[in-house]
Amino acid sequence: METKERKTLVAVDESKESMHALSWCISNLISENNNNNKIHNNLVLLYVRPPSAVYSLDAAGYIFSDDMIDAIEKYNMQLANSVMRRAEDICGNLNASNIKVEKVVGTGDAKNVICSAVKKLGADTLVLGSHDYGFFKRALLGSVSDHCAKNAKCPVVIVKHP
Amino acid sequence: METKERKTLVAVDESKESMHALSWCISNLISENNNNNKIHNNLVLLYVRPPSAVYSLDAAGYIFSDDMIDAIEKYNMQLANSVMRRAEDICGNLNASNIKVEKVVGTGDAKNVICSAVKKLGADTLVLGSHDYGFFKRALLGSVSDHCAKNAKCPVVIVKHP
Repeated sequence: METKERKTLVAVDESKESMHALSWCISNLISENNNNNKIHNNLVLLYVRPPSAVYSLDAAGYIFSDDMIDAIEKYNMQLANSVMRRAEDICGNLNASNIKVEKVVGTGDAKNVICSAVKKLGADTLVLGSHDYGFFKRALLGSVSDHCAKNAKCPVVIVKHP
Repeated sequence: METKERKTLVAVDESKESMHALSWCISNLISENNNNNKIHNNLVLLYVRPPSAVYSLDAAGYIFSDDMIDAIEKYNMQLANSVMRRAEDICGNLNASNIKVEKVVGTGDAKNVICSAVKKLGADTLVLGSHDYGFFKRALLGSVSDHCAKNAKCPVVIVKHP
């Protein structure tokens, strides 16, 4: 019997929106009730860490001390671990033999890292949570979901928190 | 046994992008191989007709004659029928008892009609094809998928033509 692999990339971060997007993805795209053994689901959890703080200046113009950089690095790593643990909890009851869960951590600007991950990993679908930012925050931060919907080379699902 | 209804709205138009989005939706969200009888899938095909041309002026400033308006109306109706027929052909092999296909035709500005249909019909997911317009066409026409991704009150899937 020929089997087909289907790779679904879900971008996860600290927000409840991204965790809701992951739940949506599991119930709608990768249902554990799906008895279709011809499809192997590969669910990839992608977390993007901000770029390293080395040589950054603080508000007063001082270069951060090594201790400070270590502390930031440690905090970022703990954050990544905590997000991945929460994401894994949500995937917890996916134990069918035709579902594989992978974790990937990238570093850099989220929107660029997500779009290159889609390309590099050959994802079939990208799933994102959407933050309901107001006009100013959106203008300032740029919208990851806007950018990915336009630039990712695969179908993109944008899931809002209800 | 308790059953759950899941309503998926697919916006269809003359473009190959929208037909590809419908195919994606059927294979990824409403698979006929899905043996999960606890979910009733309701697939709604939405076609949006442009607003009626009554009292429009042509390029030279003349009001269209009644004959002309009749001809435009007739053309628009034929277009709607032809799009719906193509969409139904794609849905053709969806004959499982737990899948229902409905057709809805709206009139007006596509992006607004689609967002209100999501609300009125209580759709769980909206699926759209994405036209890869360049900068000027996008600025001129506005992007239906951009608008719906931001404003529709449910998860939105944007499917690009490969």
